Amino acid sequence: MNNFGTLFRVQVFGESHGPAIGVVIDGCPAGIPLTVEDFTNDILRRKAGASATTTRIEDDIPLIQSGVYNGNSTGAPICIVFENKNIKSQDYNQLKIQPRPGHADFVAQKKFRGFNDHRGGGHFSGRLTLCLVAAGVIAKKILQGINIEATLTEAGGNINIEEAIALAVQNQDSIGGIVQCKVSGLPLGLGEPFFNSVESLISHAVFSIPAIKGIEFGSGFSAAKMKGSEHNDAIIDANGKTQTNNAGGINGGISNGNELLFRVAVKPPSSTPQAQQTMNFESGRVEELKVGGRHDLCIALRVPVVVESATAIVLADLMMLER
Amino acid sequence: MNNFGTLFRVQVFGESHGPAIGVVIDGCPAGIPLTVEDFTNDILRRKAGASATTTRIEDDIPLIQSGVYNGNSTGAPICIVFENKNIKSQDYNQLKIQPRPGHADFVAQKKFRGFNDHRGGGHFSGRLTLCLVAAGVIAKKILQGINIEATLTEAGGNINIEEAIALAVQNQDSIGGIVQCKVSGLPLGLGEPFFNSVESLISHAVFSIPAIKGIEFGSGFSAAKMKGSEHNDAIIDANGKTQTNNAGGINGGISNGNELLFRVAVKPPSSTPQAQQTMNFESGRVEELKVGGRHDLCIALRVPVVVESATAIVLADLMMLER
Amino acid sequence: MNNFGTLFRVQVFGESHGPAIGVVIDGCPAGIPLTVEDFTNDILRRKAGASATTTRIEDDIPLIQSGVYNGNSTGAPICIVFENKNIKSQDYNQLKIQPRPGHADFVAQKKFRGFNDHRGGGHFSGRLTLCLVAAGVIAKKILQGINIEATLTEAGGNINIEEAIALAVQNQDSIGGIVQCKVSGLPLGLGEPFFNSVESLISHAVFSIPAIKGIEFGSGFSAAKMKGSEHNDAIIDANGKTQTNNAGGINGGISNGNELLFRVAVKPPSSTPQAQQTMNFESGRVEELKVGGRHDLCIALRVPVVVESATAIVLADLMMLER
Amino acid sequence: MNNFGTLFRVQVFGESHGPAIGVVIDGCPAGIPLTVEDFTNDILRRKAGASATTTRIEDDIPLIQSGVYNGNSTGAPICIVFENKNIKSQDYNQLKIQPRPGHADFVAQKKFRGFNDHRGGGHFSGRLTLCLVAAGVIAKKILQGINIEATLTEAGGNINIEEAIALAVQNQDSIGGIVQCKVSGLPLGLGEPFFNSVESLISHAVFSIPAIKGIEFGSGFSAAKMKGSEHNDAIIDANGKTQTNNAGGINGGISNGNELLFRVAVKPPSSTPQAQQTMNFESGRVEELKVGGRHDLCIALRVPVVVESATAIVLADLMMLER
Repeated sequence: MNNFGTLFRVQVFGESHGPAIGVVIDGCPAGIPLTVEDFTNDILRRKAGASATTTRIEDDIPLIQSGVYNGNSTGAPICIVFENKNIKSQDYNQLKIQPRPGHADFVAQKKFRGFNDHRGGGHFSGRLTLCLVAAGVIAKKILQGINIEATLTEAGGNINIEEAIALAVQNQDSIGGIVQCKVSGLPLGLGEPFFNSVESLISHAVFSIPAIKGIEFGSGFSAAKMKGSEHNDAIIDANGKTQTNNAGGINGGISNGNELLFRVAVKPPSSTPQAQQTMNFESGRVEELKVGGRHDLCIALRVPVVVESATAIVLADLMMLER
Repeated sequence: MNNFGTLFRVQVFGESHGPAIGVVIDGCPAGIPLTVEDFTNDILRRKAGASATTTRIEDDIPLIQSGVYNGNSTGAPICIVFENKNIKSQDYNQLKIQPRPGHADFVAQKKFRGFNDHRGGGHFSGRLTLCLVAAGVIAKKILQGINIEATLTEAGGNINIEEAIALAVQNQDSIGGIVQCKVSGLPLGLGEPFFNSVESLISHAVFSIPAIKGIEFGSGFSAAKMKGSEHNDAIIDANGKTQTNNAGGINGGISNGNELLFRVAVKPPSSTPQAQQTMNFESGRVEELKVGGRHDLCIALRVPVVVESATAIVLADLMMLER
Repeated sequence: MNNFGTLFRVQVFGESHGPAIGVVIDGCPAGIPLTVEDFTNDILRRKAGASATTTRIEDDIPLIQSGVYNGNSTGAPICIVFENKNIKSQDYNQLKIQPRPGHADFVAQKKFRGFNDHRGGGHFSGRLTLCLVAAGVIAKKILQGINIEATLTEAGGNINIEEAIALAVQNQDSIGGIVQCKVSGLPLGLGEPFFNSVESLISHAVFSIPAIKGIEFGSGFSAAKMKGSEHNDAIIDANGKTQTNNAGGINGGISNGNELLFRVAVKPPSSTPQAQQTMNFESGRVEELKVGGRHDLCIALRVPVVVESATAIVLADLMMLER
Repeated sequence: MNNFGTLFRVQVFGESHGPAIGVVIDGCPAGIPLTVEDFTNDILRRKAGASATTTRIEDDIPLIQSGVYNGNSTGAPICIVFENKNIKSQDYNQLKIQPRPGHADFVAQKKFRGFNDHRGGGHFSGRLTLCLVAAGVIAKKILQGINIEATLTEAGGNINIEEAIALAVQNQDSIGGIVQCKVSGLPLGLGEPFFNSVESLISHAVFSIPAIKGIEFGSGFSAAKMKGSEHNDAIIDANGKTQTNNAGGINGGISNGNELLFRVAVKPPSSTPQAQQTMNFESGRVEELKVGGRHDLCIALRVPVVVESATAIVLADLMMLER
């Protein structure tokens, strides 16, 4: 079950240390201009987000295998592949013996009865978000006139992001963050009350991104403390513009023509330089584990473009459904 | 798009003031014992939750139309219908002229070009959650040995629920709340990294419930302020039991055998006795609106059993997928 | 798995001798005029087809439960229920002991481990085709300007249908037939090469109709004996009109703007007045079985409107997908 | 809409003259032994079928990109890519001006508004059946103890296949054929009455194969001429073995434990060396067209392994659903 969408459909594949990862986008309309260069910006945003805190070299060149001809989508499925290079598998041999806490190492091994490719997290690797970004680039092209913008608004509990990163490097411990996403230009009427509300679909897609722990729309969790008279957004013009936006742009699961607004919580990366006490399945005892290699201390830096992509995938599908 | 699920599939239908609402559960295995009485408890929990604050009379008797024979599921689709009675449609005629802020009145009218049944919220009515509860009762029967328990932990920003309700009645203004859901006995290995993580599926289903504004798993939004060394849950036995449960029972989208834990934020009902300023589409001006009829001041009281039901629907599907 | 369709989706439910059978149509656009009377003609065609050869009384009044308001579809799911009346269950008690050859009695009992409702064929009953007809009526309304017409072109190997029926009555043995379906006015461009060719989707839907044994498009099985130069349909105008129609209106899985043409083979009803030798599971021996009750000697008479309905369901979905 | 299946899911991609074609198989259980060599036999059968009548060189080496590790499936999606080599695109420039009759050239161009990759048939190319064969190899591995065997039983109306081919070469005109498929070892109970009958799913998959014009199960079209007493298959043992097999191994849409049997009609390839009269869209007149290049005079020779593969894909899914 690695696909998503009704009309604009995304199927991902690949493991971190296999030959390649990739994505098939099925249902993209014919005639969307598309070149390899279109992917550069968002792929770099995903990579550069982490530049301050990781030095792992990745080669993220999108190889378009199908569905594009003479610079336009053909209407047939688009397959984009990213080859895996510079892989050092020896770092990962310990995972089966002493699974890293917070990672999928243990559940993956159990679920797939030891047949999973555990190297670098395998199919659970954050590298797979590159596939979401590639699909998001195409989705954004379909969403002409709609602007999706996600930003990291907080890291390590701190609004000053650079300071938070510096502190994390100093502490040699990973940190989390909050990503806010705003969508303007979205038409009224997308989504369904049951079961495909806009919130349902966006949360479904967003929780595919590793490290996401929560999502809230508009007023979100603060709504629980508000009164109805405070929370209701008064309609103030004939197009349905509201004075406030506690709804986050959604009523009854349907986009209401105002700005779509949501926030997601990103946990600190499970890979931290700090030593941890956790089960060693060989010795049968809880023992210290120190995860080697280089660490990405604040994965939240790389999340905004991935959240944008997941959002774009959902909205492209909803736009196509509504037409 | 009013259905959900891969193997255990739920299709809802109905409008608040039409002849009936109902649900078709397709994919329920044969041989599940099922009688009308099995539904009573959860239906009453849904109704009684609101007893203190609403007096609207509902007749919620489940009429099993198919899929059950001699007290057992047959393996064919189960259709359960709830007739709509005691309907006073005259309360709702104003909705088209001056849509209630916070409700779906305006978006429903636009999306369906005026053809929607606007009476009592139509297909957007909270009454439809009765269908989720009915499906949830069946789902829970499939989940033998798994216990799902949702509770209202906070209302109107207050941990003392009764006090919060009393205050809402006194203020004649609606209030929101926080519902926490715990699932014990869930096996390790449910869910998929892309795109059907346990979080993805639960949030998808839960955001079908009207008034939900946010969801967080385990540490949730507080994870954004934590360090990796704090957040990681150390594995402490051979079954994967963890010392803490910041993961909320899920790693890499997969259930890890620990307690599944999440919280949702419920907004205050949009129907509040308070007068509000909002667009009158007849006069073309923002004018005062006072929504008549009786009001359910704290819908959050009724939400726990609905959250349980949505969760049970997801988990029944995941259990069937994993077998 | 009792549903079908991507945008225009049909979910059936019900057993022959339960309280009711019914269908939920999800995805029907808002604003389609719809009254109970719209169903009368096709429901009568389904019933009257068999009038000469069966006298079983059925009460086939469609009860619209949802999705229609003020004579128009609302955009919410449409549920239509048919109550089951005049049921004589005593005729069916023998089915478990000596399953009727050619029927689903034996497989149903095994598949559902004895929990199936075996009375009157239960969920396998031909009565369920009434649900297809109801969905087909709505689908046809969406297909403005497109004409679907199925006719029985042969019964019992005979082109003179009335004579064939008379002979079947005289012989007291059931007979099969051939139903041909033509669709005119269909636009070019519906369908997909993989896996949703027009042939794939129509055959998928049509093989849900009990008693169908084969389907062929255009030249069909005779194509196997033709030469390429004979079989190719020369394009003779700028719209793609072809001189011949061996393609049956489909190239590469896509409608080509010419008449869509296919034929289905209908087997003789398994319920024949003739005595048959078959396994008695109580005695453990092959013994004579004589199926009591009244018999529908040529179910093929009733099939054309059901084939039209299945076709309409597919084409409504394809039309909505293509827009 | 280029995917198929509920649990064992197949997504194809690629165009004949693009960089590569491929297939993603999602839902394959972990622990299925799989090597590149496993694909050789069926890939050669698909190629060799045509050896007598085509000399087009194809390089059909499966490149496994994901989902296989240490010789076993990992449980993650399996992507297999076939690079396109030895492509001569210059042969295809005329297709837009004078679309080949019987091909998808014209509909593809219209459907995709000229953006389709028309070279070599693009996404409509028979080369895509290589993807079905690859998925079929994996599906067959899941179907332990179940034997699927398809054979060409007739070509050009002739039971002596070699003679038929020789005649086609002599006549320089393409011919069709009949492929029969038998499945033994299939358990009782697969499939659903609505809408996923075994016939529905197999026909859905089989009609994705280019050039298929009809399908019939068991007695098929001859059933239309039979009497009920002749057609019914008497059950003769406690496992449901039947004396005859007019049902083709399916009752009420459900496999009955007997041999699954169906036949498909394959049309003569549209590419024939014969000159044809058809529309020239440049001149606006019907003119002679002679399709250059080498021709595969009897594609039916290559179809059996593809039919087996489509069948295996369906049955693997049904087996997984039934567990």
